[in-house]
Amino acid sequence: MKRYEKFADDIAELIRSGVLAAGQRVPSVRYASQTHGISPSTVFQAYYLLERRGLIRARPRSGYFVNDSFASETFAAQRFELAPVLEPSQEPQVSESTEVDVSELVFSVLESIKDPNTVPFGSAFPSAGLFPLQRLARSLASATRDMDPRMVVSDLSPGNPTLRRQIALRYMVAGQMLPMDELLITNGALEALNLCLQAVTEPGDLVAIEAPAFYACLQVLERLKLKAVEIPVHPQTGIDLAVLEQTLERYPVKACWSMTSFQNPTGATVSESRKRELVELLRKHDVPLIEDDVYAELYYGQHAPKPAKAFDTEGLVLHCGSFAKSLAPGYRVGWVAAGRYAQKVERLKLMTSLCASMPAQAAIADYLQHGGYDRHLRKLRNSLEDQLRAMLGAVARYFPPQTRVSQPSGGYFLWLELPEQIDSLKVFNVALAQGISIAPGPMFSPTRRFKNCIRLNYGSPWSDTSERAMETLGKIIRSMLG
Amino acid sequence: MKRYEKFADDIAELIRSGVLAAGQRVPSVRYASQTHGISPSTVFQAYYLLERRGLIRARPRSGYFVNDSFASETFAAQRFELAPVLEPSQEPQVSESTEVDVSELVFSVLESIKDPNTVPFGSAFPSAGLFPLQRLARSLASATRDMDPRMVVSDLSPGNPTLRRQIALRYMVAGQMLPMDELLITNGALEALNLCLQAVTEPGDLVAIEAPAFYACLQVLERLKLKAVEIPVHPQTGIDLAVLEQTLERYPVKACWSMTSFQNPTGATVSESRKRELVELLRKHDVPLIEDDVYAELYYGQHAPKPAKAFDTEGLVLHCGSFAKSLAPGYRVGWVAAGRYAQKVERLKLMTSLCASMPAQAAIADYLQHGGYDRHLRKLRNSLEDQLRAMLGAVARYFPPQTRVSQPSGGYFLWLELPEQIDSLKVFNVALAQGISIAPGPMFSPTRRFKNCIRLNYGSPWSDTSERAMETLGKIIRSMLG
Repeated sequence: MKRYEKFADDIAELIRSGVLAAGQRVPSVRYASQTHGISPSTVFQAYYLLERRGLIRARPRSGYFVNDSFASETFAAQRFELAPVLEPSQEPQVSESTEVDVSELVFSVLESIKDPNTVPFGSAFPSAGLFPLQRLARSLASATRDMDPRMVVSDLSPGNPTLRRQIALRYMVAGQMLPMDELLITNGALEALNLCLQAVTEPGDLVAIEAPAFYACLQVLERLKLKAVEIPVHPQTGIDLAVLEQTLERYPVKACWSMTSFQNPTGATVSESRKRELVELLRKHDVPLIEDDVYAELYYGQHAPKPAKAFDTEGLVLHCGSFAKSLAPGYRVGWVAAGRYAQKVERLKLMTSLCASMPAQAAIADYLQHGGYDRHLRKLRNSLEDQLRAMLGAVARYFPPQTRVSQPSGGYFLWLELPEQIDSLKVFNVALAQGISIAPGPMFSPTRRFKNCIRLNYGSPWSDTSERAMETLGKIIRSMLG
Repeated sequence: MKRYEKFADDIAELIRSGVLAAGQRVPSVRYASQTHGISPSTVFQAYYLLERRGLIRARPRSGYFVNDSFASETFAAQRFELAPVLEPSQEPQVSESTEVDVSELVFSVLESIKDPNTVPFGSAFPSAGLFPLQRLARSLASATRDMDPRMVVSDLSPGNPTLRRQIALRYMVAGQMLPMDELLITNGALEALNLCLQAVTEPGDLVAIEAPAFYACLQVLERLKLKAVEIPVHPQTGIDLAVLEQTLERYPVKACWSMTSFQNPTGATVSESRKRELVELLRKHDVPLIEDDVYAELYYGQHAPKPAKAFDTEGLVLHCGSFAKSLAPGYRVGWVAAGRYAQKVERLKLMTSLCASMPAQAAIADYLQHGGYDRHLRKLRNSLEDQLRAMLGAVARYFPPQTRVSQPSGGYFLWLELPEQIDSLKVFNVALAQGISIAPGPMFSPTRRFKNCIRLNYGSPWSDTSERAMETLGKIIRSMLG
């Protein structure tokens, strides 16, 4: 971490904790330089960064001031007093999957984002414009130009050996030694998750899922005729371990599905120490963890948070990743490191779709070797963080003051709790009629909870259109307050 | 059809029907030219073609003679009196899927062909060298170079619009009008078949399958916890309609799965009139037909046999196709025209793996428009037919005379019924130890029938290695006759 970044973080912390209030002047460059023992140019760089993040604003000839949107007492309170969407004290609920309805909703939301004129706040994807598609096309061309025909047989599942080696290397750099044998390439993480869940369950089994949960998880449960028990997710700290523990003691849970970092839809990240607890808890009950970690590379801090997989010594964690959100949407290349279930998952893969598309695998293998993935990722993370600031600003400007909003430290989703009386399905319909898609809360629950919640996607570069769309959304919601 | 091809076919028919016996001299070029009113060069071309097909052989200064392997009385009898592998009079048997064992076998056969030094007679794939991989790589490069980032959203399932239009066009040229809306792109036909079967069944349901059946069908049944009733397949005429009818009257069959042309493993093709009957029979019982038609383009005659889908007026046929066997192995691009189940199958696809790999779809769309697919197919069909002749010759030369062999008119599989006492699993093991893979009969049945049958793949250009491998196989089998 560079000096100016460290200083910027310190100031940001002062703003977040309310030490520096809205409208208040931040220390002058000279003063800061003297008291902190850093050069004026370092201070400038830090203030420039804070300005870019929307935290402070320069006033001509007066210096820098804390931005209204970010430090007003109210807003700070909104962000910090954000309640878990389900109280931990609530009883865990076992529910037969009622996903047919959820599916209808999901399909209409998916359909809504196909129209290029619709503002894609409801989308599950970041803007494809953020990805190095041209560079990937070059990798594709060069990797397939001299493709050995025997690849058709040698690259059958578990997949392209170079690609698997590159992925194992990335685990290694992150401090995790993973045997190559564990790695299976899939048609995106979605297929990996399907295969994993099938590998560890039988129809009728009970699976512990998150509430709210990524809707595809609900659909996979529906497809495999499984039952769900919902474990509350705290928007700051992730899955509630106390409730999970009660549930494991009381019900015959056969698997647990969790997005442990930058959870979809809440953006919550389970801390490393709590990931360790999670793994230990599941180990005690011999329950496999299906860890959906597709946003792993989209962290805003200095390092990727470690996955729960890093703390697994028993092969009980099936860790699913993907290049779809960080590099190559549409290529449909994901993977799973399935621990002790690796062979079973590989066989299911062979039976389900044989193997992943070979040109796509070869292209990504080539790109990982020569394309500058880490440089691209740094750029992508910066863009996403900027876009988060912009959207948070817009929420503060246009949404009712009772709105609660999540604080993601990675990914590209914002989770909003609107005032009680707001029906997010109505918001969805009214907004769509005005060319704006959102993801309504009930999509994320088999029991259609989160009626007054919405998920907003900030994965597109901020524009006037985004700003106006947020203004319109704000108006729609305010008008429903009656 | 060119003049010389017609003449060659006439001569071939004379050989096949025994009019021209083994070792007999075929009409001299001058004689043939005069009596048939064709030019000597046309006769030469025809004889050259027949020679290439292994039917006749030139003897220096003596003219052309019918090849021994192809017209010996014995061999002709073997080929034409081939009994159905299950007598139609047999009771249909309902069997719980016992596929775990079949899977083990399938996986070890799949594993065996990964070694490039193994002769791949057991492979399910044709040799990748027969495909225009370089030309496809160019299509891939040009299709992705200018890829619109929005494709990531617009090409979600049902798939790339250009590709779907090209496929619909091919149906149209074959005389079938298919609404674009029915077409869904999948990760190969295997995924299509999985999705179709899931769309029309619930766990525990009974499905009518073929005996012998493509082993992946058995695995899909296993995966979906379905039960199978086996309907005998006649190696000449395909699925036994009388047994199917009895079965439909007696059991609550929920779906029927059939490969109606160039069936894997027997090579059988159901005639068009019998396809019409099949469709009518299933319609009467309101049972959907999952038609696996992945070898459709690999016919040796003048025209592709029509699929059962062509006779379906009720949307009860789910027609699955693929480019994996005819153009682009490893790209994993297949499709399904799922009739009245189209929406349900599309939704399952979205829930299972979102969509097929976009670069692969775009590449094939480009190739179909500009690559010369039909020219490639003509060449491919000629190669496969040549290879068939070569393998038939080798069977005649090296295998015990009691061997019965199928007569495929397309595809690249030969089905052999060895003498009763032969255990094909033993043949598999002994042959593999000598570097030759084969597909043993029990792979193709949930009840492990076809103990004395094997499937041989002639999808690779014939070579000395192939010839020697057939000789070795023949020796292994003969040695087991005791």
